[in-house]
Amino acid sequence: MADDSIGAYAPTPADRFTFGLWTVGNRGRDPFGFETRPALDPVDAVYALADLGAFGVNFHDDDLVPFGSTAGEREAIMKRFRRALDDTGLRVPMATTNLFSQPVFKEGAFTANDPAVRRYAVAKTLDSIDMGVELGASVYVMWGGREGCECDAAKDVRLALDRYKEAVDLCCAYVRDRGYDVRFALEPKPNEPRGDILLPTVGHALAFVHALEWPEMVGLNPEFAHETMSGLSFHHGVAQTLWAEKLFHIDLNAQRIGKYDQDFRFGSEGIRDAFYTVKLLEDAGWDGSRHFDAHAYRTESIDGVWDFARGCMRTYLMLRDKVARFHADPEIQAALEVAQVARIADPTSPGGLGADAITALRAGPHDVAALAEVGYGLERLDQLVTELLLGTR
Amino acid sequence: MADDSIGAYAPTPADRFTFGLWTVGNRGRDPFGFETRPALDPVDAVYALADLGAFGVNFHDDDLVPFGSTAGEREAIMKRFRRALDDTGLRVPMATTNLFSQPVFKEGAFTANDPAVRRYAVAKTLDSIDMGVELGASVYVMWGGREGCECDAAKDVRLALDRYKEAVDLCCAYVRDRGYDVRFALEPKPNEPRGDILLPTVGHALAFVHALEWPEMVGLNPEFAHETMSGLSFHHGVAQTLWAEKLFHIDLNAQRIGKYDQDFRFGSEGIRDAFYTVKLLEDAGWDGSRHFDAHAYRTESIDGVWDFARGCMRTYLMLRDKVARFHADPEIQAALEVAQVARIADPTSPGGLGADAITALRAGPHDVAALAEVGYGLERLDQLVTELLLGTR
Amino acid sequence: MADDSIGAYAPTPADRFTFGLWTVGNRGRDPFGFETRPALDPVDAVYALADLGAFGVNFHDDDLVPFGSTAGEREAIMKRFRRALDDTGLRVPMATTNLFSQPVFKEGAFTANDPAVRRYAVAKTLDSIDMGVELGASVYVMWGGREGCECDAAKDVRLALDRYKEAVDLCCAYVRDRGYDVRFALEPKPNEPRGDILLPTVGHALAFVHALEWPEMVGLNPEFAHETMSGLSFHHGVAQTLWAEKLFHIDLNAQRIGKYDQDFRFGSEGIRDAFYTVKLLEDAGWDGSRHFDAHAYRTESIDGVWDFARGCMRTYLMLRDKVARFHADPEIQAALEVAQVARIADPTSPGGLGADAITALRAGPHDVAALAEVGYGLERLDQLVTELLLGTR
Amino acid sequence: MADDSIGAYAPTPADRFTFGLWTVGNRGRDPFGFETRPALDPVDAVYALADLGAFGVNFHDDDLVPFGSTAGEREAIMKRFRRALDDTGLRVPMATTNLFSQPVFKEGAFTANDPAVRRYAVAKTLDSIDMGVELGASVYVMWGGREGCECDAAKDVRLALDRYKEAVDLCCAYVRDRGYDVRFALEPKPNEPRGDILLPTVGHALAFVHALEWPEMVGLNPEFAHETMSGLSFHHGVAQTLWAEKLFHIDLNAQRIGKYDQDFRFGSEGIRDAFYTVKLLEDAGWDGSRHFDAHAYRTESIDGVWDFARGCMRTYLMLRDKVARFHADPEIQAALEVAQVARIADPTSPGGLGADAITALRAGPHDVAALAEVGYGLERLDQLVTELLLGTR
Repeated sequence: MADDSIGAYAPTPADRFTFGLWTVGNRGRDPFGFETRPALDPVDAVYALADLGAFGVNFHDDDLVPFGSTAGEREAIMKRFRRALDDTGLRVPMATTNLFSQPVFKEGAFTANDPAVRRYAVAKTLDSIDMGVELGASVYVMWGGREGCECDAAKDVRLALDRYKEAVDLCCAYVRDRGYDVRFALEPKPNEPRGDILLPTVGHALAFVHALEWPEMVGLNPEFAHETMSGLSFHHGVAQTLWAEKLFHIDLNAQRIGKYDQDFRFGSEGIRDAFYTVKLLEDAGWDGSRHFDAHAYRTESIDGVWDFARGCMRTYLMLRDKVARFHADPEIQAALEVAQVARIADPTSPGGLGADAITALRAGPHDVAALAEVGYGLERLDQLVTELLLGTR
Repeated sequence: MADDSIGAYAPTPADRFTFGLWTVGNRGRDPFGFETRPALDPVDAVYALADLGAFGVNFHDDDLVPFGSTAGEREAIMKRFRRALDDTGLRVPMATTNLFSQPVFKEGAFTANDPAVRRYAVAKTLDSIDMGVELGASVYVMWGGREGCECDAAKDVRLALDRYKEAVDLCCAYVRDRGYDVRFALEPKPNEPRGDILLPTVGHALAFVHALEWPEMVGLNPEFAHETMSGLSFHHGVAQTLWAEKLFHIDLNAQRIGKYDQDFRFGSEGIRDAFYTVKLLEDAGWDGSRHFDAHAYRTESIDGVWDFARGCMRTYLMLRDKVARFHADPEIQAALEVAQVARIADPTSPGGLGADAITALRAGPHDVAALAEVGYGLERLDQLVTELLLGTR
Repeated sequence: MADDSIGAYAPTPADRFTFGLWTVGNRGRDPFGFETRPALDPVDAVYALADLGAFGVNFHDDDLVPFGSTAGEREAIMKRFRRALDDTGLRVPMATTNLFSQPVFKEGAFTANDPAVRRYAVAKTLDSIDMGVELGASVYVMWGGREGCECDAAKDVRLALDRYKEAVDLCCAYVRDRGYDVRFALEPKPNEPRGDILLPTVGHALAFVHALEWPEMVGLNPEFAHETMSGLSFHHGVAQTLWAEKLFHIDLNAQRIGKYDQDFRFGSEGIRDAFYTVKLLEDAGWDGSRHFDAHAYRTESIDGVWDFARGCMRTYLMLRDKVARFHADPEIQAALEVAQVARIADPTSPGGLGADAITALRAGPHDVAALAEVGYGLERLDQLVTELLLGTR
Repeated sequence: MADDSIGAYAPTPADRFTFGLWTVGNRGRDPFGFETRPALDPVDAVYALADLGAFGVNFHDDDLVPFGSTAGEREAIMKRFRRALDDTGLRVPMATTNLFSQPVFKEGAFTANDPAVRRYAVAKTLDSIDMGVELGASVYVMWGGREGCECDAAKDVRLALDRYKEAVDLCCAYVRDRGYDVRFALEPKPNEPRGDILLPTVGHALAFVHALEWPEMVGLNPEFAHETMSGLSFHHGVAQTLWAEKLFHIDLNAQRIGKYDQDFRFGSEGIRDAFYTVKLLEDAGWDGSRHFDAHAYRTESIDGVWDFARGCMRTYLMLRDKVARFHADPEIQAALEVAQVARIADPTSPGGLGADAITALRAGPHDVAALAEVGYGLERLDQLVTELLLGTR
């Protein structure tokens, strides 16, 4: 980006921006085309991300230690990677397991019909948890990309949820047994690569957590693209997650509704939704990572990959700046008053849930006609936000 | 339908089919066109539905007693309606409140910014609960069609969820205080009439229930069209609801993904999803209503309305028949075996969550290569279901 | 809006902004709720729009002259309306027919199965064309909102296209016979109020024009919301329309993909798409109206309606300003060069379509490996546009 | 499938079913997972497809002759492949070019910004046309999967359409020069792998053809999944293509609206749309291929691939049988009469487009009230079709 603007929106580790090895390491393969970029050495990723001002780097087990590596190979890789972390101060706040690439998981992982597949999925996850903990991760993400079906006759969903619960409980039991300081974050997604994926939205995953053995150990990792694919409001989903005290991690990127999983640069689509997401996180005092689960266009060489990473962070910072302006803008504040936004904090029944309070509430008076006449000034308020976003206020 | 086929798929009250007054009474108005059918007297609806073999009729307060009626008018209407019910034996298993038609609710009802609107919404609901109970309803549906926003700056979603919880808690408190035998069923919907509606899916509503004061009193009323609008699998959603023991009511109809709320005749779109829904309800031994929340095309006169009602019930019965064939078909059963469908009942960790069991599970052996080779025969299984649906097996 | 910003983005008639009577006159009725605003007198609309800086006002016949009016009533209304136009200088650049509200059109208008309905639809259109011409309209829009079906067995699409063509040809013949200076603009829409509407996208309508008797008289009126409902790129559609020299009118508003027809304030959703649309119109030197086919939220009183109208125009002007900045920004221009954007103007075959030219082109050399290595810098270019939109450059 | 049913719905070459090498040869790789099946030798595919009763096999150049093969390798492969064709009688009715897999096409092929890429894309296509013609193909499909963009600033759509036209014109010129008996069929798709693809629907492609130098040589290859991704009615699109006399080929498969490109087995989703598609093709006397552009689930071994292929053909034949029943069913025919379906063949203006005929049409009388009263019986008609599909009539 322009030299003269670096000062204004230059990220630092204090901003807690993180990337996955699989994001900057994405080689541009897609369902219709081969790789367009060479492989990126994870160690090179560490140095580059640190250089750009990132706080951390996250990974799937197979991103760092190729599937099928020997224990010795694993050891060497870990050592070299840790050295780069130490060297740069880059952190590993989160780790996760790849339970989707290998053919063994084609029918499912934690919810595969075959118990032998499920056992392997759990075992692979436990190995991977060890690896994450070894590098300092305190959040462990679970994305069940293969948990689902295309042929509905082949999957008993209720039993599959039993198995899903069992697998998460097993991981929790393991972490407790080892005394690890790790919490789990479920990442919902509606479809792709499966026709329908279990726990398809933030809501379904939140509900699922209540059935677990140790619900306090498990929260969510909502992803912008995943909720948006279904046309749901991402920041409403994040708000409900925060309301339930279950926001354990967050994946930021961009996506158009009703399309394949695009994982675009944060803010490149849905600027308004991106703004309200940033506003929600900042207003709520979110102190976790701002993780970008996205990748560069297939048209890019490695330079474009770093442009992509820079862009994610800069846009977040620009939007964060707009959040501050939102709160400081007297016209916006006046419009919020007209819209009676703050009054939603007032209880409906000031007297509580008792019978007398309810009788009083019911008795009214209710001036329905007068209430129906009130205008809320939302066109003006929304336009003010538009102008804030466009930088004209 | 054809006289000769009435015998085969003729509904009876034992099938527990119900319709809303607003469904058969729908007059064909839409966002771009005026009414095409005259108003239907609720009493005529009762006689006609009883005649068609329905079990019950459900209503919003305003469907039966026009908004703004005096107590005397209400009394007279209720008396006349009850007489028709007594006369025909038709039941009122469910009732609900209209919190969306009147201008007073334009900014929300239970979650309006203005507390006065919220109080009126609760009061109207309590009146309507009395009315439902008076006519025998034991399920009370809550559809929050106006709880949401277009201008996101105007709604603090976390506080709105506080208010939503408060309103549901107030209704529960009231029902407990009165000693009514009523349970509540939340009906999720993603959008329309609001840009984004709170509790947009089955999952979000299930999660919300856990935050309530009396969660055992509140479950869900999933609707085929509403989940389908977001491209989510309806029967997966119903399965998760059953799994959480929260299926309190169900709304059947038809819908195409990513379109306006169509409320088509059950089975007229998404035959396969309709089949799996029926299969799930029947396999789970669901003993509640099969409620059709749909309406006749705008092209229809009153005859078409009754054709519509007949069609909903006949299609359900045809699909129920196919469920029985599914279980009896030896080739389908053999294909289920190849797909290892029943094995998902086997625990992943036969020894449970203890450290030893986990160590054993982890130790394996895991024959990953062999497991990756297995074919699941799902093309064949899915094709067999297709042929079952097409009636060629 | 803020007083101090009025100067910067204040619309004037030279900007050619127009609104429909039905847009500012929208009363907030929706499929689930009654009107929230009183009726707006068309004459009041004229004065208010003129005051806001609009260029013109457009209408459906029934917007101005209520359905079923006598000739005398029509006369009086027209006289009074024309006086307001004369008084204010507001123009009527476009008119259209309401072929969707009345029950007679429930099964279709130009493509109804019943020829008597079709004849009435054509007759109503001819009356309405007279009315439009009388008030100076030179573009006549045709939106076939009822041309389509829910029950596919009930509509022979190929014959329906014959009838559609016949109806448009009849209108063209009439206009030619009268010597009117009027061109027609077809407005595509995929669905709502019908399950599927004929000519669902810009593409289908463009293709249809070629089959007409006088194709030169008929072009398109693409609408932002309608293309966006299907997830298609609106500005790509407008670009193809311009490429075919068939952009005769344009409807600007805002919409989320895969939802009901929202008709939101221009720019309130899809800022990026709105920007590229404005850029395309300005770069192409479009000299027709910028028509806003949208309406205020249902939460608004009449003040909100005028805020809505102001907001549409201001956002257009802000985006137009950004188009100028785009062309002037040296970093953006440098990035366009890296992306080789201008090179698409170079012919693939400089020698044309002859056999020798093709032989030469085929012979190469083709340095495939080198071409595959090139990076296009699109992450950087796209980020620069993001920053332009956010007002930080 | 069941032995006893083979007789009933067993395909033969007379049914003109075709598959692509890339369909049965699909190895199950997806964006999140590696291949699950071994490579299938094209020659083995030929024998297996012939055995199953297919009529033909189609291919992309790279499916048959691996990218980068020498002329000698190409020769050997072609010879061996042709021998298998001769041996089995299987035909190659269609061929196409892979302009999407190689990195060189990452920014586009016919519409790449860089002329050198475009030249190579045309050259590769001409080579591939030769190969198709050599094996007897008379239809040449063009799917422009890489023609589009994610970063809109990087593509001038109007110039890109110029280049698209130029490339198609070049191919037509070549075919004319060589005297090949080949027609081109454009295959539209809205998105994936690009954010937005040029010519996104059947309509856009039909409109584009009119701009070509030799429009009579170019038609369409509509694909079920591609139109359905956008929520458009596939059979309406095919109907408009037939109406324009531009159906040159057709791709059958299954897809859910608003999701990634699924390419499921024909009929496995959208049974009703599949039925109306078959009905349209059969009623129109379509004598071209019924091409299945789909692939087996990733869960399948090679046996599942052949089950998949069998299933596509069987479902088509079952639906074709239902088309015959539709026409023979007296109740359906009676319902069509009530719906006045055949009357759409009657001209709106029996006297044509002359001024007198229009004056007469306009004069009426128009009994609007009576026409508005008519019911069309579409709930009954649609239900009869549902029951036909379910096999109960």
